Amino acid sequence: MTIASHPPRRPKRLREASLSDAPSLLLGRIRGLSSSRLVWLACVPVALFGLGVFNLTAHAAELPELTPAFLANNFFLFICAVLVIFMNAGFAMVEAGLCRQKNAVNILFKNLLVFAVAVSAYWFIGYKLMYNADWVIPGWFKFGGLFFDPTVTPEMVTEGKLVPSVDFLFQAAFAGTAATIVSGLVAERIKFAEFVVFSLLLVGIVYPILGSWQWNFPDDAGAGGGWLSTLGFIDFAGSTIVHSVGAWAGIVGAALLGPRIGKFVGGKPQAIPGHNLAIATLGCLILWIGWYGFNPGSWLSLAPEVPYIAVTTTLGAAGGGIAATLTSQLPGMGPDKRPGKPDLTMTINGILAGLVGVTAGCDGFSMPAAWVVGFFAGVIVVFSVAFIDAIKIDDPVGAFSVHGSCGVWATLAVGLFNTDKGLFTGHGFSQLGIQFVGVISYAVAAVVASLILWSIIGAVFGGLRVTEEEEIIGLDIGEHGMEAYPDFAPSAK
Amino acid sequence: MTIASHPPRRPKRLREASLSDAPSLLLGRIRGLSSSRLVWLACVPVALFGLGVFNLTAHAAELPELTPAFLANNFFLFICAVLVIFMNAGFAMVEAGLCRQKNAVNILFKNLLVFAVAVSAYWFIGYKLMYNADWVIPGWFKFGGLFFDPTVTPEMVTEGKLVPSVDFLFQAAFAGTAATIVSGLVAERIKFAEFVVFSLLLVGIVYPILGSWQWNFPDDAGAGGGWLSTLGFIDFAGSTIVHSVGAWAGIVGAALLGPRIGKFVGGKPQAIPGHNLAIATLGCLILWIGWYGFNPGSWLSLAPEVPYIAVTTTLGAAGGGIAATLTSQLPGMGPDKRPGKPDLTMTINGILAGLVGVTAGCDGFSMPAAWVVGFFAGVIVVFSVAFIDAIKIDDPVGAFSVHGSCGVWATLAVGLFNTDKGLFTGHGFSQLGIQFVGVISYAVAAVVASLILWSIIGAVFGGLRVTEEEEIIGLDIGEHGMEAYPDFAPSAK
Amino acid sequence: MTIASHPPRRPKRLREASLSDAPSLLLGRIRGLSSSRLVWLACVPVALFGLGVFNLTAHAAELPELTPAFLANNFFLFICAVLVIFMNAGFAMVEAGLCRQKNAVNILFKNLLVFAVAVSAYWFIGYKLMYNADWVIPGWFKFGGLFFDPTVTPEMVTEGKLVPSVDFLFQAAFAGTAATIVSGLVAERIKFAEFVVFSLLLVGIVYPILGSWQWNFPDDAGAGGGWLSTLGFIDFAGSTIVHSVGAWAGIVGAALLGPRIGKFVGGKPQAIPGHNLAIATLGCLILWIGWYGFNPGSWLSLAPEVPYIAVTTTLGAAGGGIAATLTSQLPGMGPDKRPGKPDLTMTINGILAGLVGVTAGCDGFSMPAAWVVGFFAGVIVVFSVAFIDAIKIDDPVGAFSVHGSCGVWATLAVGLFNTDKGLFTGHGFSQLGIQFVGVISYAVAAVVASLILWSIIGAVFGGLRVTEEEEIIGLDIGEHGMEAYPDFAPSAK
Repeated sequence: MTIASHPPRRPKRLREASLSDAPSLLLGRIRGLSSSRLVWLACVPVALFGLGVFNLTAHAAELPELTPAFLANNFFLFICAVLVIFMNAGFAMVEAGLCRQKNAVNILFKNLLVFAVAVSAYWFIGYKLMYNADWVIPGWFKFGGLFFDPTVTPEMVTEGKLVPSVDFLFQAAFAGTAATIVSGLVAERIKFAEFVVFSLLLVGIVYPILGSWQWNFPDDAGAGGGWLSTLGFIDFAGSTIVHSVGAWAGIVGAALLGPRIGKFVGGKPQAIPGHNLAIATLGCLILWIGWYGFNPGSWLSLAPEVPYIAVTTTLGAAGGGIAATLTSQLPGMGPDKRPGKPDLTMTINGILAGLVGVTAGCDGFSMPAAWVVGFFAGVIVVFSVAFIDAIKIDDPVGAFSVHGSCGVWATLAVGLFNTDKGLFTGHGFSQLGIQFVGVISYAVAAVVASLILWSIIGAVFGGLRVTEEEEIIGLDIGEHGMEAYPDFAPSAK
Repeated sequence: MTIASHPPRRPKRLREASLSDAPSLLLGRIRGLSSSRLVWLACVPVALFGLGVFNLTAHAAELPELTPAFLANNFFLFICAVLVIFMNAGFAMVEAGLCRQKNAVNILFKNLLVFAVAVSAYWFIGYKLMYNADWVIPGWFKFGGLFFDPTVTPEMVTEGKLVPSVDFLFQAAFAGTAATIVSGLVAERIKFAEFVVFSLLLVGIVYPILGSWQWNFPDDAGAGGGWLSTLGFIDFAGSTIVHSVGAWAGIVGAALLGPRIGKFVGGKPQAIPGHNLAIATLGCLILWIGWYGFNPGSWLSLAPEVPYIAVTTTLGAAGGGIAATLTSQLPGMGPDKRPGKPDLTMTINGILAGLVGVTAGCDGFSMPAAWVVGFFAGVIVVFSVAFIDAIKIDDPVGAFSVHGSCGVWATLAVGLFNTDKGLFTGHGFSQLGIQFVGVISYAVAAVVASLILWSIIGAVFGGLRVTEEEEIIGLDIGEHGMEAYPDFAPSAK
Repeated sequence: MTIASHPPRRPKRLREASLSDAPSLLLGRIRGLSSSRLVWLACVPVALFGLGVFNLTAHAAELPELTPAFLANNFFLFICAVLVIFMNAGFAMVEAGLCRQKNAVNILFKNLLVFAVAVSAYWFIGYKLMYNADWVIPGWFKFGGLFFDPTVTPEMVTEGKLVPSVDFLFQAAFAGTAATIVSGLVAERIKFAEFVVFSLLLVGIVYPILGSWQWNFPDDAGAGGGWLSTLGFIDFAGSTIVHSVGAWAGIVGAALLGPRIGKFVGGKPQAIPGHNLAIATLGCLILWIGWYGFNPGSWLSLAPEVPYIAVTTTLGAAGGGIAATLTSQLPGMGPDKRPGKPDLTMTINGILAGLVGVTAGCDGFSMPAAWVVGFFAGVIVVFSVAFIDAIKIDDPVGAFSVHGSCGVWATLAVGLFNTDKGLFTGHGFSQLGIQFVGVISYAVAAVVASLILWSIIGAVFGGLRVTEEEEIIGLDIGEHGMEAYPDFAPSAK
């Protein structure tokens, strides 16, 4: 593509014609719209307000004096939720940075909007599909209506329990993470609205139901838990439930979409470098920080174990980053095929791989085990990127390798390295077997569910993929009519 | 403007001539300066040290054992203050990203320096104008001298009160926010020093006095509060007091400055796209995070309501982002005038609009109401951007639409949706009327005060606006002699 | 350099040839590697796991009820550790932004990898060199084996002490900071592997031993402390121990490497502007936030003094930013030599200088003193940049001026302004003398140690500096075979 054929650098935004004659025209336009689209637009909030009119504020009228445990636990999870929500910025920067400039607006937009959509869907229905108990198929499905009741009870205060709002916020942030992972896999070729609808259904319905298989723990009498939880499956902070579910949902989308134009030439994978490694690196470091909410927060109270979990999380990241740096220098693995040239994008993915790698078992690994598990995750991610290329699936940012391959590794590693149950700590194969069951169950369920969703959405909307012309021009112009960096000249490609 | 006429890409920084002959020359220069400018420079800190020499450190000599409430409340507000201060990074990225590349240094610089100036001014005088009680015009004005006394008393410990330092830090961060909003409205054409002086006076004097009208609450006997607080005005975390005051101050500046060259051609508004939507998106997500300090922290203690406020804040942001995405796709609203092209900058502003929208009432909205209020804020912001264009005011980043229009909406929405006092929850018009009074009072006061300030500053400094030549070249070269991205080629415009 | 001679914009990443024939080839490659490099790669984690197999998880079996102080102190330091770790993102953005585009990948990579390496080295050996007591040369050296024991004891709970994990995390974050400072000084010309090895040894060995001179405080009987601690040296949060040690280590490297090509022409220093001031500004604001962990966290418990320390930290930053803005406008100090043009990079460095400036004494300065100390740091940093240029050392990002010059100033300022011991508060010269001893001791020790390390590494690896050809092309292509912004056209230089 030559510079001459590049799209006009400065798309006119809007409003030019009819707004010149001042406010009366604006009001005219609003009136013009009101009979059709505006009414429709207004229906959503009005209906929502009607539905939730009895869902009142969290007045906590007659509470006893706040106990230290109540203060500590709720404050702790609030901060952890904020850190996990901050991960949206990290994902946005990593994914945008690793894509091409011509698709940067699109990928930024997806990451930004998806959290707004995800948290809405999870609040509207998802949270009560995941954690409530009114309508139950024991171990497999539960549902307790829309919204949730934010009331703070005296019992929560005296027993140091989490208030519903903070638990919701933390869980909603997790749900958003699963959707964000998908956006990396389908980047640079998926239609915008189709992706948003998929995210809505993934976070509102699929993720909560799958999550309830594990994260509804049995009560003290051993009853009521999800079937995997009852079986003894361990996935402490969600390497499988969050990360691999997102990765499986995404790779199904990537396979259905097919590779980007130019990714495979004559059957050989071509490198398509990311356009902004500064923001990609920033995103990696933001995600690292966010993980201090993700993993320690998953203990759900400010226990003495929390700092230890932060340490294993740190060591996993460190091991992963170091391993990926070394591995990417092996012959044939470097960015220009010469050995000895460490690849920054691999180190970014290696650190994330290490973090995913310790997520399932960060509470039960010894510190050296955490570093080692992270290290192998950093090796795995490099080979996984090559493998995904080899099977001709186009994963633009390596999201499956980070969250899928290393999500699986993380979950199996619990069966190998867990201090109390691992094979390498002398406790036999039984936990490893249970981990296999969990990994495979979630893989099958996520693949089947997302295959159904992608197919329905594709059928309803007339295809998932943008046109060839739009893909060449870039999704920023095609889907959004704007550019991320209009003041900079593009390189001659 | 052709590439050929572009300013030299690499301005020589300085120092070339006289430093080549090593330290002696440097010392010579310092001596050369010392008789004039350096002495003047040194006067400021010396005077400050003299003034504050008895303002000693916060020794807390004889305190009782720290109570859980004392630990929790002070730690909570400390973290919230840090989150609000982090919003400076968010504002800097949003505003710089939505401006042109040739003015990026200038807008980054304003955002960076303004917090340093704001916190200094607020510490020197503003905090005691806002919260102290030595010299009082009841309800309207109070002042208690310079600086503040950081002493921690035993009573604070036993009663779980905030120490003065943490309250100051939180309030100073709020004060800085008001100044930052101004910088977006006057971007790309204001002289640097003039803006800094305005910020100094806004944060040091105007904002504290206006803030004291509401945020000095009456004591238990009903005495001593600001007049709006006594009236029953509700603005929980400052949609009006912080956001709309900043927006009014800014729009007065924008109106006085006039539009940027090229903004209105033949009376029609022209789109002037931002130069870096990656950092603008990052800034939006940082602001989202920062709002978890802004709103929950405004409860000023770690109460059971805090996580609920975080949830309503989240839902407001989500509603605003979704609404702006939908609204920007209405005919005539999209970036290239064709419907169905969602505009990333509108979604960024929609999320911020939703956040501003729930700020006034986040403690008293039901959850659906919070989402709905945020949703309408996201609709309002899109129409407001068109409206501001229509009345020929140039707001480069949409700051008035986000903080002014939605600040007003937020404050009125309390009168509509507040669970205990709103019209839609069956409590009549009285609160709505009070909200109108507050909104209008702050609008009038902020407009008048900033009109006076801008006029005086313009008169003293000889005009607020850079020369036409400088504006065309860009303020980065004109005001600072440097560029934000000297290694990148500019696009041919 | 013309555009024509620029390296190809899109290096092919890898994998092209041999992966086209699907998974079997991949497996073949892995097998091909396994006899040599992969085995070697695998040795590291296996050995580590073996070494640490008895280093088990932090089970806290029989603990009493968690006390408020235990909850508060451990949570507080956990959050502070997260904030300090976030400083890695700040350093990465500042340093990358202030370097040239052609070296951006390299400097991002160094900042990213160095924390992974630093935390690994500090965990493996450094922490127990700094804080343990098995083998002791009293006051000068101590060592207690590898790793650390994360066990939480009942005594920690009842007495509100820090658990080992959270103390480690906080200290490891500090250790990482020292290494990161080095990377700025040696930027744009050092070989990648050599820098990583230096960081490993600095953080694993040099920093812990030097740190133990001060940060092992005497016990209640006055025994057991580091020699400087016993002497009465004050360096509250590490202006000298962390910042100036990093700066001294770096400036030795910078002096050994020599200046970048083009830095001094005809003996005169040339400005080499940074390529991305947006991320540099972001980095500065992230570092400002991170300092709220660095300084308040150094109290090591959630004391009533903590918010006060946050205030003095804020005032130092504000004073530094304002002073540098003013100072950079003095004649001959501006970016294009004309007075009155404030230089953004100087304000960035001024804020950081102010933060470094209050770090040593933030617990013992009055508030005006903190602002004044920060202010003078902001003046010093501008003159220091000119001075380092004048002595022909090339410090691309001004790291020595920020962390070295202002680290020294900060430490001496304790002897001037400390409320209880300072010269200006009427307590004579004795503390100032002690501060001199500490400053000089650390300077000598850090210079000697790093001179030895750099020399050994240079000898072993065959030189520290990249080839002239590579330096001209840029380290991104030379060391990593990739570019940070491949989709953007470079400016014609």
